[in-house]
Amino acid sequence: MKEFAAFKNKADLLRKWSLISTTEATSGHPTSCLSAADLTAVLFEKYFTYDIADPLNNYNDRFVLSKGHAAPLLYAFFGVAGAYPLDELKTLRKFGSRFQGHPVPKFAYAEAATGSLGQGLSVGAGLALAAKREGLSSKTFVLTGDGELAEGQIWEAANFATHEKLDNLVAILDINRLAQSQPTMFGHQIEEYVNRFKAFGFEVIAIDGHNYEEIDRAFEKAVNNKNGKPTAIVAKTIKGKGISFLEDKDGWHGKALKKDELQKALAELGDVDDQARFALKKPSGKLMPANTDVKYRVATSFENGKEYATREVFGEVLASLVEQNKNLYVLDGDVMNSTFTEDVKKKTPDRFIECYIAEQNMVSVAVGLSRLGRVPFAATFGAFFTRAADQIRMARVSEANVKFAGSHVGVSIGEDGPSQMALEDIAMFGALPGAVVLQPADAWCTASLVQEMAAHTGIVYMRTLRPKTALLYSKDEHFEIGGSKLLRHSDHDELTVAATGITVFEALKAADELEKENIHIRVLDCYSIHPIDAAALNESVHATKQNLLVTVEDHFEHGGMGDFAAAALSDTGAHIIKMAVPDISQSGTKDELLHDAGIDAEHIAQKVRELCAVTA
Amino acid sequence: MKEFAAFKNKADLLRKWSLISTTEATSGHPTSCLSAADLTAVLFEKYFTYDIADPLNNYNDRFVLSKGHAAPLLYAFFGVAGAYPLDELKTLRKFGSRFQGHPVPKFAYAEAATGSLGQGLSVGAGLALAAKREGLSSKTFVLTGDGELAEGQIWEAANFATHEKLDNLVAILDINRLAQSQPTMFGHQIEEYVNRFKAFGFEVIAIDGHNYEEIDRAFEKAVNNKNGKPTAIVAKTIKGKGISFLEDKDGWHGKALKKDELQKALAELGDVDDQARFALKKPSGKLMPANTDVKYRVATSFENGKEYATREVFGEVLASLVEQNKNLYVLDGDVMNSTFTEDVKKKTPDRFIECYIAEQNMVSVAVGLSRLGRVPFAATFGAFFTRAADQIRMARVSEANVKFAGSHVGVSIGEDGPSQMALEDIAMFGALPGAVVLQPADAWCTASLVQEMAAHTGIVYMRTLRPKTALLYSKDEHFEIGGSKLLRHSDHDELTVAATGITVFEALKAADELEKENIHIRVLDCYSIHPIDAAALNESVHATKQNLLVTVEDHFEHGGMGDFAAAALSDTGAHIIKMAVPDISQSGTKDELLHDAGIDAEHIAQKVRELCAVTA
Repeated sequence: MKEFAAFKNKADLLRKWSLISTTEATSGHPTSCLSAADLTAVLFEKYFTYDIADPLNNYNDRFVLSKGHAAPLLYAFFGVAGAYPLDELKTLRKFGSRFQGHPVPKFAYAEAATGSLGQGLSVGAGLALAAKREGLSSKTFVLTGDGELAEGQIWEAANFATHEKLDNLVAILDINRLAQSQPTMFGHQIEEYVNRFKAFGFEVIAIDGHNYEEIDRAFEKAVNNKNGKPTAIVAKTIKGKGISFLEDKDGWHGKALKKDELQKALAELGDVDDQARFALKKPSGKLMPANTDVKYRVATSFENGKEYATREVFGEVLASLVEQNKNLYVLDGDVMNSTFTEDVKKKTPDRFIECYIAEQNMVSVAVGLSRLGRVPFAATFGAFFTRAADQIRMARVSEANVKFAGSHVGVSIGEDGPSQMALEDIAMFGALPGAVVLQPADAWCTASLVQEMAAHTGIVYMRTLRPKTALLYSKDEHFEIGGSKLLRHSDHDELTVAATGITVFEALKAADELEKENIHIRVLDCYSIHPIDAAALNESVHATKQNLLVTVEDHFEHGGMGDFAAAALSDTGAHIIKMAVPDISQSGTKDELLHDAGIDAEHIAQKVRELCAVTA
Repeated sequence: MKEFAAFKNKADLLRKWSLISTTEATSGHPTSCLSAADLTAVLFEKYFTYDIADPLNNYNDRFVLSKGHAAPLLYAFFGVAGAYPLDELKTLRKFGSRFQGHPVPKFAYAEAATGSLGQGLSVGAGLALAAKREGLSSKTFVLTGDGELAEGQIWEAANFATHEKLDNLVAILDINRLAQSQPTMFGHQIEEYVNRFKAFGFEVIAIDGHNYEEIDRAFEKAVNNKNGKPTAIVAKTIKGKGISFLEDKDGWHGKALKKDELQKALAELGDVDDQARFALKKPSGKLMPANTDVKYRVATSFENGKEYATREVFGEVLASLVEQNKNLYVLDGDVMNSTFTEDVKKKTPDRFIECYIAEQNMVSVAVGLSRLGRVPFAATFGAFFTRAADQIRMARVSEANVKFAGSHVGVSIGEDGPSQMALEDIAMFGALPGAVVLQPADAWCTASLVQEMAAHTGIVYMRTLRPKTALLYSKDEHFEIGGSKLLRHSDHDELTVAATGITVFEALKAADELEKENIHIRVLDCYSIHPIDAAALNESVHATKQNLLVTVEDHFEHGGMGDFAAAALSDTGAHIIKMAVPDISQSGTKDELLHDAGIDAEHIAQKVRELCAVTA
């Protein structure tokens, strides 16, 4: 058939350039590209709707390369689709090239950075969900390897896709039998995958991934599927397919062909029409990501003398923001009554996404939403964001605009004990270049920062507190990313205590206590942990008698606010004393645990007394 | 039947104390205990073999409470088994009590700390695997909730258990329909769970979780199962079962009864024999965890002038250690040819555990092995340990003795790009109290530290390098946790550069370059990042003209070695200049990327020149 000849020609063209580019780079994963070349050639030749001039058009179909190491194949696609000359593929993996070892945003056609496996189906579910909820006609295709199906996140995504009835999502499983170091768990036992995806509620189509008729029929069925089920095309393929000495051979993962091997391989491919191009169908509509650079105004009011949990204020303000801005989505991991995102569900259920207890999928779904220009807020206990540390890392590599709110931080949560306490979350988020980390201590600061968070482009993490806290500020106070508030100061202060979150109140109590002993200290509320207010820290330290900063935080010692403060003062010669949680905590009341961790008012006051005595 | 009456009596006794203890605590999850009371009463009454005097006896059956919030039920079990007076349960969730909000090692009968959901089946698989491989007759029972079945790790564990033919593992699924904030994804549609576990290769038994006959038959079948398949008992249960006003009601998750509600509830339970006790069968054998405090001697030899990748040396030395010590196990995530744990597989396949690309399960399996006194080494790319950040966090809460080796750290990996680079791993492991973080720069140091790592009790993380590096040391050199090596020094040094791993070589090159300009610097190899060698840093800084330390590392700026060094010098007033990777990297050669990140010899030399000029 003529159509099949076109498929074959395109597939071999993709093969050819996957081989050439990796040999040129002297590294890469050509055999992983070859197994998927037939599948993807058919998809692009016949089923993929896409405007190459506008990768961000929301009406475009979406192709997520979950098996990121097959990047040369992805790069070859868009070259054959006319996005750039094929010859540019020879810059693969070279410094400065858009064709990096694994896809990153520098390659404009990548829906997300991939390369940490098993995340693509979740990203695709995010793309498909937005399309579904907003009535866009686009389809999302996700190409996964078989090795990565061992990642649990795949099954989180599968549950989610079925539950959300994403029949606009097509998973293409490239079952080529061989993983990096050995055969996969199931090799070519296709039924193992078929059974699993069926059990998870997918429409499953098992095919020979090199038989164009079967591939074609599978895609035709998948794109016309309206039964509410996502589709999984389980394709039995041969790693290295098309080149005899590579086919189904172990030991070729992540190896480029040598020049002479390449010549042999190209000879086997025979005549391939280098001028052939995919003629992608253009979508009929155009919808570009909305401008998210919006300032928000949420009317909130807090009563003097009353106490508020910052997590509650977060939920309330976020719900108003979501109501006012249709780009905002909120994702929950079955803790909406703890993080108070339940307020969003009540007001705008269409922009609330229940991810159940599956934090990895939640974060990668958010990455998908971000790609379409939506602004996703993901919220769970701060401790449980560690469950998605890799997905958060990849969100950063993807340059995704995702907001994270972690409740129940620190030992101040009390009786639930250490498994529920976020005590390493500042280290985790803070290590990511450019990520913003905030921790408001009172309701007014929270209300303001939630809005700053939404308006900021890039990753922002907010720590919220379980216990209620008193009001420190008033309506007209201004808060900003990178700011701080000086809460106590006099003309004869001994030193500065920088605190954040719950420890602000402890520092204030300590200051009051010390005041009675005629020891005066400054207290700085570092509600912006990263970036930290270096200018205020400097000024504060220099305005006191001692060139000394005491930091107090409800976080482990390493990687917390204290380290940001120390870095900000590193060239001043200031002494830094970090007070933080020194060990795994336990159950108890908030006050018992703050005391036990040595970060309560009593310990702060005692530390200040010691420091003053030393230099007195 | 008399037997059933005994089951009911015990179940109600468990119910009674779950209710009393949570009311006493004024918090906790009584309804989550009640749904599982019948299941566990039958298990303990009739099927559980355990010596209460020796929780660590390897011949004991194992009970893992994956749904950690049902801790009061666990505490009630062992009370009813005679481990302590039931009245002590009234200290639940109180400061200092062994009965914490979620199980921790202070409760000697907890197999692992739980409370971050979805990890228990993996821990159980680790326990069952050791029993299987070592021919122990014990069974492992894991009680999971239904909400936590949404966690992907469950399916990683399921694949693993089937693949390893763990027919000594029994998962008890307490399908009580209600999660924290709402009904679960599947509610009481039991077949959703049945189909999934069947597809994953389990022997599945679906029952009414409150029907003693069905429960009894299920356990009888499960404990006699020898067909190579793990068992899943899918039990349809009622949350709050036994108390009319709690049964199947939303809004009762994580709520203790008020005193008057408790009275009403206890009245409903009626006469419960408080003196009834489980008479657990004692195991016939006794095998206590071996003393792991062993010193190792591995003969290694490296040729002067040759270069070695520290990851290769790691694999080689580890393989020798495993050969010499039967307690050691090695776990791989399908990268054994990159981390070089393939050396272990070749020599001692019985102590090599292939976990495929499922890092979360890998880490929790290791926690299970550690509980039995085995010493597990888990190895993958450093970047991919972020996938298991929560499991590593819980390993620390569990006080597990697990060793982690992360290869391919930093931008020095080159062409593969940012998704494969570990640049936040020091922040992650370093935040955990007491965790040791090591990074040897050459072969001799690696060979020595792998042995120190094995001999140390507690969590140790070693960073290994992808590229080969030159020898810096010789056979007789001594390395230790907390140590460092001064590689360059003179009597007229300007300042100190502290480096680690790949940057040691850059620092040395810079020193050589500067030497030509008559600028002398100290170079310190901080191969022990945590604990860092504070004494050497202090000494070095004080021995130089400038009270100044430059740290250089192939890691992001925050949370790395520089912050440990700064903390070590915080009270000295030394200026600290951190040189680290400032942003997401890209593809390129090692040298291009080190240069791009500003951490190569050229940048170090330039920084030193600037610092000397400032003060000259």
